[in-house]
Amino acid sequence: MGTTQLETVPEPKYWHLKTVIGEALDSDFSVGEILPNERELAARFGVARATLRQALEQLELEGRLQRRRGVGTTVAPPRMGVDVSTSPQDWPGAPTDAWQPLDWALALPPAVVARALGTEGEEEVHTVRRMLATHGQPVAAELLYIPSGSVPEVSSGGARSGAARARAVLRGLRKLPLDGQDRAVELGSARADDAKELDRLPGAPVLVVTTRYFSEGRTAVVSVATYRADTCRLTFGDSGDLQIRHEAHHRRAS
Amino acid sequence: MGTTQLETVPEPKYWHLKTVIGEALDSDFSVGEILPNERELAARFGVARATLRQALEQLELEGRLQRRRGVGTTVAPPRMGVDVSTSPQDWPGAPTDAWQPLDWALALPPAVVARALGTEGEEEVHTVRRMLATHGQPVAAELLYIPSGSVPEVSSGGARSGAARARAVLRGLRKLPLDGQDRAVELGSARADDAKELDRLPGAPVLVVTTRYFSEGRTAVVSVATYRADTCRLTFGDSGDLQIRHEAHHRRAS
Repeated sequence: MGTTQLETVPEPKYWHLKTVIGEALDSDFSVGEILPNERELAARFGVARATLRQALEQLELEGRLQRRRGVGTTVAPPRMGVDVSTSPQDWPGAPTDAWQPLDWALALPPAVVARALGTEGEEEVHTVRRMLATHGQPVAAELLYIPSGSVPEVSSGGARSGAARARAVLRGLRKLPLDGQDRAVELGSARADDAKELDRLPGAPVLVVTTRYFSEGRTAVVSVATYRADTCRLTFGDSGDLQIRHEAHHRRAS
Repeated sequence: MGTTQLETVPEPKYWHLKTVIGEALDSDFSVGEILPNERELAARFGVARATLRQALEQLELEGRLQRRRGVGTTVAPPRMGVDVSTSPQDWPGAPTDAWQPLDWALALPPAVVARALGTEGEEEVHTVRRMLATHGQPVAAELLYIPSGSVPEVSSGGARSGAARARAVLRGLRKLPLDGQDRAVELGSARADDAKELDRLPGAPVLVVTTRYFSEGRTAVVSVATYRADTCRLTFGDSGDLQIRHEAHHRRAS
């Protein structure tokens, strides 16, 4: 026990390589720089291509590297902190809300969303698609599910565009009292439509944030938002600019 | 625009297969049941093995399936909600804290942790390893970094075991006023030591929660906790038992 247990866990070879490459990224490369190709890198570090590839995959998962089609592997900038705290509490579409409404549809929600909303099995709900961008980069795509009971004055007909209807639904929401909201974060994979908006491949790992908005004793809105896991850290509380890399934790001084 | 944009995004073949298998999991299989092998499944759904494997990987990423060595692929139970809200605020090791201290070491923190703590380059800090289990299952592993300035009365010598020293350090913390804390969630990959504790393979995707504890105008403690992404949803606010599967969102009634 003591310090021993922390140090004697054997690590696979690619893991050590990952740490070595991570240190090289800090010292020898700058953000946005394109890495040499796999053959050159494998020769430089004296490892097999398969080992190298595993290490690069880990570094990509941790947000240190980005692989882009037609460009190659580049050194990623630090992940952006995106605030997902639930205070101050407000409806989606409030004046301070940075999300952009894109489109609207009447659609059947997934079964779990329908259960949360308490809608009947075949009841369609207002479905608003929104995007969040930071510094011109798309960071998240969202679907808001809003039963017509939450916005009784909003009609689903008319000739307006999807974005205009989306804004009308969100304006309608603001007539309801907001009693509270809650959130959950979990790992997911990017759906094809979200992946396209987020400039990712379908199936890429994403952080899925589900929010329920409560009004008058029931769930008035459910939001399912998909955040890019490669470029975002989700912050709650005031976590400012701390950037923790999940890397070697136990370099000992002695 | 209108409903059109939401429906015309082409989805890759394995994505449709993933939805079909997901529905089969709901209707034909129960939690914990072992799936037929890949050859049988590919034949049952009339697809190539490679397509099947992609669909199974997606379902694993979304927490629907678990692959276990020596067992095969089983139907996963719903993800557990693990509360990571920062209120009520208290030090790690408070009486209501469910984390179990396992071990202790004096070690150099990673550079980003050292920066957050404001420690000097080569200053070792108390490093406490803890585990969180729910219903007998390990769900998270944590490293707490605590500079000696935060617990001046705790000596680093003596013959006590790692767990006893860990508890002594956490007891020492409670003499400090806690001014606040903040949190960030990001995607990471399991380090070998965490993976072993969590019964995962090294490099498996995990949710990394970084917490800073503030006292008297500085960061007194940094925690880096690694949550199993396959079995956990992180909740903040009172999100109760809502379980949102990140699945097909646009089955239309008409």
